[in-house]
Amino acid sequence: MFDQEKILHEVLARIKPTPDEQQKMQEVADNIISLVDQVALDLGLSEVNSLLVGSAARNTWITGEHDLDIFISFPEETTESDLKTIGLEIARKVAEDADGFEERYAEHPYIHANFNDFEVDLVPCFRVSSAAKIKSAVDRTPFHNQFILSRIKGLENEVLLLKQFMKGAGVYGSDLKTGGFSGYLAELLVIQYRSFPGVLEAVDNWKPDTFIDLLGHANKTHNDPLVVIDPTDPGRNVAAALSLDRFARFIASAHEYLESPSELLFFPDPTEQISDRAFEGILILRGTSMVAIVFEKPDVVADILYPQLFMLHRSIRSLLERNEFMVLEGDVWAGHNEAAVVLELLTEHLPSIKKHMGPPVWSKPHATEFKEKHMQELSGVYIENGRYMVDIQRKYTQVADLMRHDIHSCKLGKHVGESIRSDFRILQNTELLGIKQASFREFLAEFFHIKKPRNPDASF
Amino acid sequence: MFDQEKILHEVLARIKPTPDEQQKMQEVADNIISLVDQVALDLGLSEVNSLLVGSAARNTWITGEHDLDIFISFPEETTESDLKTIGLEIARKVAEDADGFEERYAEHPYIHANFNDFEVDLVPCFRVSSAAKIKSAVDRTPFHNQFILSRIKGLENEVLLLKQFMKGAGVYGSDLKTGGFSGYLAELLVIQYRSFPGVLEAVDNWKPDTFIDLLGHANKTHNDPLVVIDPTDPGRNVAAALSLDRFARFIASAHEYLESPSELLFFPDPTEQISDRAFEGILILRGTSMVAIVFEKPDVVADILYPQLFMLHRSIRSLLERNEFMVLEGDVWAGHNEAAVVLELLTEHLPSIKKHMGPPVWSKPHATEFKEKHMQELSGVYIENGRYMVDIQRKYTQVADLMRHDIHSCKLGKHVGESIRSDFRILQNTELLGIKQASFREFLAEFFHIKKPRNPDASF
Repeated sequence: MFDQEKILHEVLARIKPTPDEQQKMQEVADNIISLVDQVALDLGLSEVNSLLVGSAARNTWITGEHDLDIFISFPEETTESDLKTIGLEIARKVAEDADGFEERYAEHPYIHANFNDFEVDLVPCFRVSSAAKIKSAVDRTPFHNQFILSRIKGLENEVLLLKQFMKGAGVYGSDLKTGGFSGYLAELLVIQYRSFPGVLEAVDNWKPDTFIDLLGHANKTHNDPLVVIDPTDPGRNVAAALSLDRFARFIASAHEYLESPSELLFFPDPTEQISDRAFEGILILRGTSMVAIVFEKPDVVADILYPQLFMLHRSIRSLLERNEFMVLEGDVWAGHNEAAVVLELLTEHLPSIKKHMGPPVWSKPHATEFKEKHMQELSGVYIENGRYMVDIQRKYTQVADLMRHDIHSCKLGKHVGESIRSDFRILQNTELLGIKQASFREFLAEFFHIKKPRNPDASF
Repeated sequence: MFDQEKILHEVLARIKPTPDEQQKMQEVADNIISLVDQVALDLGLSEVNSLLVGSAARNTWITGEHDLDIFISFPEETTESDLKTIGLEIARKVAEDADGFEERYAEHPYIHANFNDFEVDLVPCFRVSSAAKIKSAVDRTPFHNQFILSRIKGLENEVLLLKQFMKGAGVYGSDLKTGGFSGYLAELLVIQYRSFPGVLEAVDNWKPDTFIDLLGHANKTHNDPLVVIDPTDPGRNVAAALSLDRFARFIASAHEYLESPSELLFFPDPTEQISDRAFEGILILRGTSMVAIVFEKPDVVADILYPQLFMLHRSIRSLLERNEFMVLEGDVWAGHNEAAVVLELLTEHLPSIKKHMGPPVWSKPHATEFKEKHMQELSGVYIENGRYMVDIQRKYTQVADLMRHDIHSCKLGKHVGESIRSDFRILQNTELLGIKQASFREFLAEFFHIKKPRNPDASF
């Protein structure tokens, strides 16, 4: 246990903001809040006030993260259009003092501004009476803030450790790309299990259908691997965005840590970038076929882009499998200006013929139609398992041809669809090396599950 | 309808025995029966008598078929050992007059003898009080004989037509190789539907779960595509040996006949024998891979051999599919002295790696074991759908190697197993042409569903 304490102590030293850093953060937040309140007052809106929410408000932020979430809170009876226009007006006025700002869009528009090296979101919201009665998704945040503040005192370091551990395990972030744990969820786990080691010991025993309800007030069922009932809303699962994969990864990492704790689990070595030669070697070693569709990355935020990439991936995979190309592995990548779906196949080439299944012999009108339609095929019509069958010419014997011609029959999201309709490339095997971006070479290392030495010193 | 009458008339002219042939058959049968009765009497067995059963007894045999089934009937209270020894003694004495004979074995031994060009089975049986109380399978036959004789008068020609049609369709014979219709079943269908066209019109509307019960006395359910309750045994399905494939083929042929009747359906052109050049052409055209295991044909009757070949086929297919070789088509062949299982594959070669599925991440002892076991594998252990996975070296990347090494793990029947353990060959692609037997070349034509011109004159 001494070992573990030493590790946690060292990790904490690397991630806990210094008193100076904390003070600086506090000052910046105070200044902006005063400014918001002043602007509101100048507009004669005494009912509008502002508050700091998120990890900055709770002292659960990791050093170097300078994100401030400042909510501009309007009375519940404000109309939506007033919230939008007046909310933005206040936020814009405040942002005039910033080094730069832009309008961003979630359910409602908000302002993202830079004050020195602080990233500040100025978000208008409704001040509703309970989290179950929110008028827009962000209205929930002040309730979360309040709940955590009331319980987290003294546990802040545990939250920092858990967040960093989740980052190391690749499961931190409830964005749609990651499908992992939100900061709020990490805080709730610490409140439930009282310490970082306590969380990991609990997680080590998790299975799908794990259920946590701090206030014992759940009022509906959820069908997710992990269910953590929101203390501020009995009908909501805080872990709804957590994918089975991230859930499993977290359990696996917790188990690994408990078996042999190591700082490397908090700060893993950076993923290797696969060189041209390494990639060529891997292809020979694996003997599989690689194919990728590459297209211009649509200029939309990750939460819009990734669901469309995932859908494209699923859809191409199903196209290939319907056509008897066996897919071993597949994933999506998005770089600076390009995006891709990459697949590994058992083979890129199939024989000229395929079996085509017809109706049961006793399904008379269909059977007659089938026989007439296929009179000219390669084989005669024959019977298998009570059905008419015929061997027909396979339309595409090369996977690249199939993808090139049938990609437009795949389910294409709005932006990815526009990009693919305008242009795309199909790359095969070593052609993938045409993509030189570091992030792609890291993606390939993960794609092939290249082993990272557990501990570099241990390899001798 | 005139057309059809003309066709049936012509078919009948080709298959109905002449009066001379019938008379000859009757004389031979009468002589043997007298001989059996005399031999029994000489042994002081006045309770033993003989009877002619089967198609010869019912005038439902096709010209040229000179098979006589003569049953030697013992009182019910005879012991099994007496039936065997005394039954065989009588049969052997009778066969002393024959041109040659041999002992054969079904449930009990019997004698197969040649009298001129007649094939005669001399079969001891018990004379039980009803077909539901039989002591051995053959005891049922006299009851069948009696029932058919009581109903078939005037319908004999219809039976001849139906049997010949079934032969043309490849569905005649309830042996284990064919899995088709027995002569008794054909006779029952004619009794039920009153004429050959009547049978085909009924069959054209058959679906799986067709149920026929002439006497309305069924007393249990059966799970077969066609159920025809035995008029002599309410618990028995006469069509139990009929495979789904032969059931479907019969429906398809009936439909074809009703759409355009033709003598060709009764007397199809002989199957083509595939030449070396044709086979090479087919392989190029189809682009698939052929593989066969060839071994010495065990010296056993077809009803013993074929179930073992079918089992071997299923077992090899499952071996290949477990190892990710995709099987398109497969069948068994037995020639003069060799037998084979022949398979057509999407590909004969697979990549060096394969995915190996481990336990769920949350199944702790198994997960630890899996991770330790696979520490040295090609890829790192990774997670997919909540399970640990690892990419491992595929043991056999060539289908021939897999079959050569793992054939002994397949389910091998007694005789086929002995043969394969003593020796076998794996042939691939054009190596199959090493088998020159006509029956193998016909087998290949059927394997590839080579189209037969429906009517040779129609091809212009």
